[in-house]
Amino acid sequence: MNKNGLILVVSGPAGSGKGTVNRILRDTGDYVYSVSRTTRAPRPGETDGNDYLFVTREQFFEYLEQGDFLEYNEYCGNFYGTPLSTSEQIIAQGKNIILEIDVNGARQVKEKKPDAVLIMLLPPHFSDQEQRLRGRATETEEKILSRLEQTHEELHHLDMYDYIVINRDGETQQAAEDIMAIVRAEKLAQKRNPDMEAKYFEN
Amino acid sequence: MNKNGLILVVSGPAGSGKGTVNRILRDTGDYVYSVSRTTRAPRPGETDGNDYLFVTREQFFEYLEQGDFLEYNEYCGNFYGTPLSTSEQIIAQGKNIILEIDVNGARQVKEKKPDAVLIMLLPPHFSDQEQRLRGRATETEEKILSRLEQTHEELHHLDMYDYIVINRDGETQQAAEDIMAIVRAEKLAQKRNPDMEAKYFEN
Repeated sequence: MNKNGLILVVSGPAGSGKGTVNRILRDTGDYVYSVSRTTRAPRPGETDGNDYLFVTREQFFEYLEQGDFLEYNEYCGNFYGTPLSTSEQIIAQGKNIILEIDVNGARQVKEKKPDAVLIMLLPPHFSDQEQRLRGRATETEEKILSRLEQTHEELHHLDMYDYIVINRDGETQQAAEDIMAIVRAEKLAQKRNPDMEAKYFEN
Repeated sequence: MNKNGLILVVSGPAGSGKGTVNRILRDTGDYVYSVSRTTRAPRPGETDGNDYLFVTREQFFEYLEQGDFLEYNEYCGNFYGTPLSTSEQIIAQGKNIILEIDVNGARQVKEKKPDAVLIMLLPPHFSDQEQRLRGRATETEEKILSRLEQTHEELHHLDMYDYIVINRDGETQQAAEDIMAIVRAEKLAQKRNPDMEAKYFEN
């Protein structure tokens, strides 16, 4: 069977719990979290190579010219992007790489790597999402409303995704296992193993 | 999410171990084995409704006229077919139905039910298959060669299948769990849950 890892895009609105789910996956040892390049300055406690690869704008655009981004975007005047070369190295080692990116990033990945697997992680319902966001109690009302509005916008693009995983309260482990099942199944997909007939009969 | 069960086709050459794998699936309680209608006479020990639904040729052709076959074929002068109505009832109850049929049957199912999941179960290699068949010691050399020849023919149609599962010696449980992962993943497929956006926001 195909020995390569998969490129996994895990998108999800604020409150979907994607950070926790991805941490469970990473702890299995089979999943590597993609570290993005950014032109943003490090915040207190952030370390280079761990949270981000901190680069200058000049370096960022050099990588861009070299075609070394799987996806990138601009947010609040700073650039963020997923290194293509690193991603390819990781999957060649048989590890799956997780990209925790939004709908726009997901679309870029799908264009560049059609065999990437796009997963949307969702709370069971919009009302649960709202409740989780308010439960955090760290965000302003304005911020909460803006995030909920963004979810409306993002879910219009749900049909771009291959899978939808629901993260129910107290069942985060189940959601992570859903993703593990998706990865196990995808690796068995006939389209990912086009040379099986020849291999079966080879001497 | 979609509460329906799936129609699973599990094909595999002689020696693939599909009987054992399917028994493991059935023992979980989530999978129902499809019982075929046949015009063949019962063999000693076979019971109606358990091994087969034994019908007359007239009855068989009546079902055929009513369109009540998911697939059917003729073998050694007898007809065999999978009841459509029963299959639909089973998946409506949320159980998955397993059809243990060959490439020709699989093609008919895919035409009639494009959302059926087609799985090819294989020994690791042709040489393993040969060894398993010879190990049975119950079959004539002629029969063994005919089965191996048939495998050559059948595997030309491998690209019709959605998944390829390898049944390694002593790892039948793993092969069954591969199929369980496929089913878990397929149920999360976006294309099987086209109304998720609306459901997410509904009051």
